[in-house]
Amino acid sequence: VAQAFADRLIQRVRALGHPLCVGLDPQLERIPPPFRRGAMKPGDPETAEAVAEFCLAVLERVAERVAVVKPQSAFFEALGWTGVRALGDVLRAARAQGLLVILDAKRGDIGSTAEGYAAAYLAEAAPLAADALTVSPWLGFDSCEPFLEAARSTGRGLFVLARTSNPGARDLQELEASGKRLYEHVAQGLAQRAGRLAGAETGWSGLGLVAGATWPEEARRLRDLAPSNLFLVPGYGAQGASAAQAVAGFVRGSSGCLEGGVVSSSRAIVFPDTDARTWEKAVDEALERAIAELGAAVA
Amino acid sequence: VAQAFADRLIQRVRALGHPLCVGLDPQLERIPPPFRRGAMKPGDPETAEAVAEFCLAVLERVAERVAVVKPQSAFFEALGWTGVRALGDVLRAARAQGLLVILDAKRGDIGSTAEGYAAAYLAEAAPLAADALTVSPWLGFDSCEPFLEAARSTGRGLFVLARTSNPGARDLQELEASGKRLYEHVAQGLAQRAGRLAGAETGWSGLGLVAGATWPEEARRLRDLAPSNLFLVPGYGAQGASAAQAVAGFVRGSSGCLEGGVVSSSRAIVFPDTDARTWEKAVDEALERAIAELGAAVA
Repeated sequence: VAQAFADRLIQRVRALGHPLCVGLDPQLERIPPPFRRGAMKPGDPETAEAVAEFCLAVLERVAERVAVVKPQSAFFEALGWTGVRALGDVLRAARAQGLLVILDAKRGDIGSTAEGYAAAYLAEAAPLAADALTVSPWLGFDSCEPFLEAARSTGRGLFVLARTSNPGARDLQELEASGKRLYEHVAQGLAQRAGRLAGAETGWSGLGLVAGATWPEEARRLRDLAPSNLFLVPGYGAQGASAAQAVAGFVRGSSGCLEGGVVSSSRAIVFPDTDARTWEKAVDEALERAIAELGAAVA
Repeated sequence: VAQAFADRLIQRVRALGHPLCVGLDPQLERIPPPFRRGAMKPGDPETAEAVAEFCLAVLERVAERVAVVKPQSAFFEALGWTGVRALGDVLRAARAQGLLVILDAKRGDIGSTAEGYAAAYLAEAAPLAADALTVSPWLGFDSCEPFLEAARSTGRGLFVLARTSNPGARDLQELEASGKRLYEHVAQGLAQRAGRLAGAETGWSGLGLVAGATWPEEARRLRDLAPSNLFLVPGYGAQGASAAQAVAGFVRGSSGCLEGGVVSSSRAIVFPDTDARTWEKAVDEALERAIAELGAAVA
């Protein structure tokens, strides 16, 4: 049996002393000059190669220093099938370097269609295999089943969208039904199913949830509702939450540090806005700063 | 300016006299023997070619008889990048034959990430261009904006997941907040924005919604809330709703027929379970039956 995703993730986070997850958001117009080539537009195969090279360069800089990376599928799909081929290259390269990979694709469907997505990203022989996948709960918990079942049998994980940090979260996620906000309903449903992807060694569950870091009180409330589910916390860095806010839903673990998930930063790290002489140097600086901040926040 | 998606769709539906949309769900294990070749497994390029050939054969049978087809992205993604390449071939072939295409991909994200998905499927130069895309509302109406903006500028459409027909719809969509069910909140939000994708000729809006056909009363309530938004009605055929149930949310139009959307049938048509001697004959029979039933239901 494969080691559970939650155990693999938490053990690496403990070893490194920080929960930083580097997001790979290769927006075409932001790819730095050293990597640009050809027309840099969707459908051009050279463009997809440039994007892959950029991502591989990021992986090389972060491989020994973080536990996990999070490629954003949208930016690869935007290039067409050559972009999806590049995504496959990036997924393989990351895992070959010992990084865990959360594919941010926010998929969601029912029955055999959800099985199709699970076959793409989570199955044993998945052509675009990731260690974990982000999924949407909007169609209901039965829509999570095919993903859950695939993840269980392969030691992979899921992060279900509970609470996002954008203003529009108020439209549905924050509505109150039967005395609970919608995202609390989601967290509760995931807590009930946490055992399905529980790690035998750490006790954490790889049936994770996306917990936007806008309000620390919300993160603590989500943690109360879902005590063992891993959190994927977006919104740190470019999107504005502080390191302390980002880990508000973490709890003190056996290592003595706060733990319980990962905190994702994308553009602030891979497209750093600094005076550094080279892109490599700028990425290194942004990475060290994020690691130091988050390391201090969980200490 | 491009003609609005809603006008293009409704005018073809009127000309044909029925609202059938044929779903392309190429599940590997169900591809009929004449089309199978190679290992028929994910990652094998020959398998993706076989799937593309199967889909092109379906398109050839339906091209003159229906207004629109709905490929399901999951089954193409399940094959890896060669599957996405095949999806591109299918999208192009369908549109070259004069068919409208709704890509069923249920995407959803925020900001520049949603722009990435829009660039993939809805932009002028989209490498995987469809006439309309299904999207999820879970992240809120701001997450729909980049899709809406791309669709508006290219004369394309959206179908937002309001009410699905699976049992899990009760987990979130049917919860009641401020006196309205969640799917009613979605329908209302889409009605407020309907003008953004309104067709000048028919008055229908290409900011559509997915309206599962489980209960006709629900469909009529959705129509009351969203009087001009097109409906994409799944669940007819293999999933069990009758033709009359499926068009319960339609209203009598200028042609004298009930109109206001399309009704999708996938497996009952492309994987027909009959005694017909050939797959072609079986598809033709299933297609004629569905057309006759839906044509009678809207007459």
